[in-house]
Amino acid sequence: MVRNKKNFEYVAIYSSLKSKKVSQITDQVFEILESLDIKTLISESSPISSKPGMKPYSDKYIKNKANLIIAIGGDGTLLSSARLFGKDGLPIVGINLGRLGFLTDVAPEELTVNLKRILSGKYKRDERFFLETSVNDQKVYHLALNEAVIHSGGLAQLMEFDLFLDNKFAFKQKADGIIISTPTGSTAYSLSANGSIVHPAVKAINIVPMFPHSLNSRPLLVSNSTKIVIKVAKGYKAKLSLDSHHNLNLKDGDEVLIKKANSYLTLIHPEEHDFYSACRTKLGWSLGFNEKDYKL
Amino acid sequence: MVRNKKNFEYVAIYSSLKSKKVSQITDQVFEILESLDIKTLISESSPISSKPGMKPYSDKYIKNKANLIIAIGGDGTLLSSARLFGKDGLPIVGINLGRLGFLTDVAPEELTVNLKRILSGKYKRDERFFLETSVNDQKVYHLALNEAVIHSGGLAQLMEFDLFLDNKFAFKQKADGIIISTPTGSTAYSLSANGSIVHPAVKAINIVPMFPHSLNSRPLLVSNSTKIVIKVAKGYKAKLSLDSHHNLNLKDGDEVLIKKANSYLTLIHPEEHDFYSACRTKLGWSLGFNEKDYKL
Amino acid sequence: MVRNKKNFEYVAIYSSLKSKKVSQITDQVFEILESLDIKTLISESSPISSKPGMKPYSDKYIKNKANLIIAIGGDGTLLSSARLFGKDGLPIVGINLGRLGFLTDVAPEELTVNLKRILSGKYKRDERFFLETSVNDQKVYHLALNEAVIHSGGLAQLMEFDLFLDNKFAFKQKADGIIISTPTGSTAYSLSANGSIVHPAVKAINIVPMFPHSLNSRPLLVSNSTKIVIKVAKGYKAKLSLDSHHNLNLKDGDEVLIKKANSYLTLIHPEEHDFYSACRTKLGWSLGFNEKDYKL
Amino acid sequence: MVRNKKNFEYVAIYSSLKSKKVSQITDQVFEILESLDIKTLISESSPISSKPGMKPYSDKYIKNKANLIIAIGGDGTLLSSARLFGKDGLPIVGINLGRLGFLTDVAPEELTVNLKRILSGKYKRDERFFLETSVNDQKVYHLALNEAVIHSGGLAQLMEFDLFLDNKFAFKQKADGIIISTPTGSTAYSLSANGSIVHPAVKAINIVPMFPHSLNSRPLLVSNSTKIVIKVAKGYKAKLSLDSHHNLNLKDGDEVLIKKANSYLTLIHPEEHDFYSACRTKLGWSLGFNEKDYKL
Repeated sequence: MVRNKKNFEYVAIYSSLKSKKVSQITDQVFEILESLDIKTLISESSPISSKPGMKPYSDKYIKNKANLIIAIGGDGTLLSSARLFGKDGLPIVGINLGRLGFLTDVAPEELTVNLKRILSGKYKRDERFFLETSVNDQKVYHLALNEAVIHSGGLAQLMEFDLFLDNKFAFKQKADGIIISTPTGSTAYSLSANGSIVHPAVKAINIVPMFPHSLNSRPLLVSNSTKIVIKVAKGYKAKLSLDSHHNLNLKDGDEVLIKKANSYLTLIHPEEHDFYSACRTKLGWSLGFNEKDYKL
Repeated sequence: MVRNKKNFEYVAIYSSLKSKKVSQITDQVFEILESLDIKTLISESSPISSKPGMKPYSDKYIKNKANLIIAIGGDGTLLSSARLFGKDGLPIVGINLGRLGFLTDVAPEELTVNLKRILSGKYKRDERFFLETSVNDQKVYHLALNEAVIHSGGLAQLMEFDLFLDNKFAFKQKADGIIISTPTGSTAYSLSANGSIVHPAVKAINIVPMFPHSLNSRPLLVSNSTKIVIKVAKGYKAKLSLDSHHNLNLKDGDEVLIKKANSYLTLIHPEEHDFYSACRTKLGWSLGFNEKDYKL
Repeated sequence: MVRNKKNFEYVAIYSSLKSKKVSQITDQVFEILESLDIKTLISESSPISSKPGMKPYSDKYIKNKANLIIAIGGDGTLLSSARLFGKDGLPIVGINLGRLGFLTDVAPEELTVNLKRILSGKYKRDERFFLETSVNDQKVYHLALNEAVIHSGGLAQLMEFDLFLDNKFAFKQKADGIIISTPTGSTAYSLSANGSIVHPAVKAINIVPMFPHSLNSRPLLVSNSTKIVIKVAKGYKAKLSLDSHHNLNLKDGDEVLIKKANSYLTLIHPEEHDFYSACRTKLGWSLGFNEKDYKL
Repeated sequence: MVRNKKNFEYVAIYSSLKSKKVSQITDQVFEILESLDIKTLISESSPISSKPGMKPYSDKYIKNKANLIIAIGGDGTLLSSARLFGKDGLPIVGINLGRLGFLTDVAPEELTVNLKRILSGKYKRDERFFLETSVNDQKVYHLALNEAVIHSGGLAQLMEFDLFLDNKFAFKQKADGIIISTPTGSTAYSLSANGSIVHPAVKAINIVPMFPHSLNSRPLLVSNSTKIVIKVAKGYKAKLSLDSHHNLNLKDGDEVLIKKANSYLTLIHPEEHDFYSACRTKLGWSLGFNEKDYKL
């Protein structure tokens, strides 16, 4: 897929971290963009050095003006850039700080080459869906790119809920909570809770119980067109947590609707991007003890 | 969805089991079909009583003539009817022997009502994909509705393989084997191996390691358009097993390609059919120890 | 093993629940004890009816006087009676409210027979160890019969800690927390977190990670003579929770020492008591979906 | 613990592998032993170079004469030396080929120092129990140091059995098989099947189901004094496999008794030996993806 660089007339730099390394990469990205005559907007939340021409812009201005966001940091930074800019359709490319992320796959040492190729139109688009939630028919403002979690509020603390899928009763469960995860989130919290890894191209939502009382509970994958309703059982309180970021209190009887949002996040990757390579690096698939047995 | 009963001019009865119960249900189904003036073909493999008009037909004849297969037995019977008839496009309805199956959802006690409604066109269609396999570019004749398993041939016996997904290297693994499962198979063998439950509507294939040496292996779901290649590593032998039924020997270096077949199985369900209800009954979701705690 | 009933001159009745059923059983137990000329002390926290002779006694008085505690309720009630009385050496027999517990194994319908046999000296003793904890060398007053949990305080919230076993570094981990469970607790919270079931006779402590970030974490069983130290990593806060009951706040650098306490809980069971029978009933081992397959 | 080197008057060298590396280490060990005036016996199954004085001795001779076995290779080699010599009481020290094993903990690069210290009496003893088995009261000759496995003989193939523990019925199960593992075996096959890691000092046996049909099956730890009986159910065949090495066919109705053998394996370790350090290296506890997050 080749697109004209004109698509990227205004490019914004964003980071949620303030560190020397982020500053250095910010400077480097700024120089590359300047050298390509691209108008560069530094997000007000990012570290700004004293270089001439570098000045902060408001998120609102960036949302209106930018054609691309360059997010510098780890997957957490990319998640926050997605919540700020990505849900409104702005494509995002993630530059990591030296260690591959699932979402931030441009390495600092390949920054110049990769960024120039991407800005010249040589890249891969990768669309990720968000989850949107409502509580008792009231829409929650924030979206989740990784997961919505409904939980008791504390570990080793029970809650009970009924799960309905497309208006059909699925099951009643006592557990610490339940994770509703996108494929993007399948390598995050859901994975710790024994959820399967889901390739980003699979149109599914992963429903993963958290410390369920019942031994026959298992993670369940449903189509991403499914309307998921969780109803807090009588006598229990709960919390709704979106991307471990936004939290809402729930009381008994509350009904939380979770479903695929209409907006998508557009990730921009170098053309050679490979999900399985990220799995090998991030999940240690290439470092397992048996791999060493093999090499003996 | 309403279809004219003319669609079901010829209906065949099939079972892979021979028991008194199967005979009784066969007789009952035969009577219902006769009463509706539907031409009834009894598969030669099914038990035949002495009723006038009941005579066996060959599978070949049935394949050419029948518009619907009525399979009597458990999920295993339905699997074998799917392999015999279903892969050529013939729809199948499954009648169980008293206990709900994931695939055989018409109960004997509701046989007359349910069958008449289905034959009058009141039913739900449910399409399930098969997996097809090739070994070193040579197509294997048999399809799998549940899963293809590549394994060492014996428990507590290692094999090693490389996994490629859409021509990209995913990982190398030492394990007893690996399960490649459809959503239909996700409640069968794959579930015992810690695979997630996958709703039939999800277009995914579940890749589940069997006793992997590496502690960081996890089940992986990929889109059902993915070409899955497993290459047996140097120095290892293996077996390919389809629906625990057809087995092939593999030698080192052999490449097995597994992908979604073009043909679909069409299951016919009563209109009130519900996947989650089958889960509750079959997986004991309504019998868990905590549900009883709850009732206290 | 036969003991003279004189051992049980004073018997106390305890429950942490107030319900009609508990009242009825309390009355019944009172009558049985009176008929055997055993002095009966009703714990002040238990429901008292208007029967002549029934009057409440303080916990302190009971601790000094009673030779046996009869706890009426579920496993939770037995846990609280263990914390109140059991840690000081008083044996406890548990009467359930109609559903077998792991700890409360006398059923209401067999109350008279079982209680009389136990009080006549026909019973099984079953000793369970407690865990004691110190924070920075300061002993925590409360003991745990099931488990000590060190956790971040909230789900989907990370903490980091170092684990030392008998003064040797075992591992550093990022997780929501970690469960340190006795065999008694192995069928409780630990089981939900994928811990193995540990027979009460095994002298071991189960160390079970909670949603660990690392895919190669596994539950680890160590001898119950092991000194377990968990040190909260820099920059993290945590909580220590004992039997989901007593909670302490921890700050970074805090060291929690967990080890077998010197005191034991003595459970009194009917002679035919059987741990595996409790497993079958409580964990649904006799209700699994395949057992039904078998019975077909 | 200090013992006089006279205890090690005769030392035998054993390996089940033939490779250049094994030859080199054999030569090196031979020289160290000669320099200490220890009589050195080379097992007939080990590679012998042309050095003067190196000649092969029979296993029988070694069993009678040697005070210590030096096993060169991986954990597999140590297992086979344990079966050959260790079960008769001969202590074994394991020298690995460059990669730490759970059982072979002397590294080639520290060979001279470690071996001299061990032979001078500075070492740690570590006793490991074997499992012995009988089929229908007939004792099986071979012991298992890791595990006894009773299985259907093939993957994706069911068997059914009843499990009795100390003569009490525990459960009936449909599964591919069941693993009965020692603590020594808990880091081997049992670990792949989701068994917990059990420290060598824990006096327990781990009972781990293999692909059980029932979702509420869990690994179960029992005291190592427990008599474990597995009865093959009607209509099923099975196999008994000891340390993946010795195999016996079982028919339906066969009863396999598995219990701790009377003989112990005595492992000799350098004084600084540490089980958890082996876990970190072998299980990748120090290589997990989150540890790297931490280091960022």
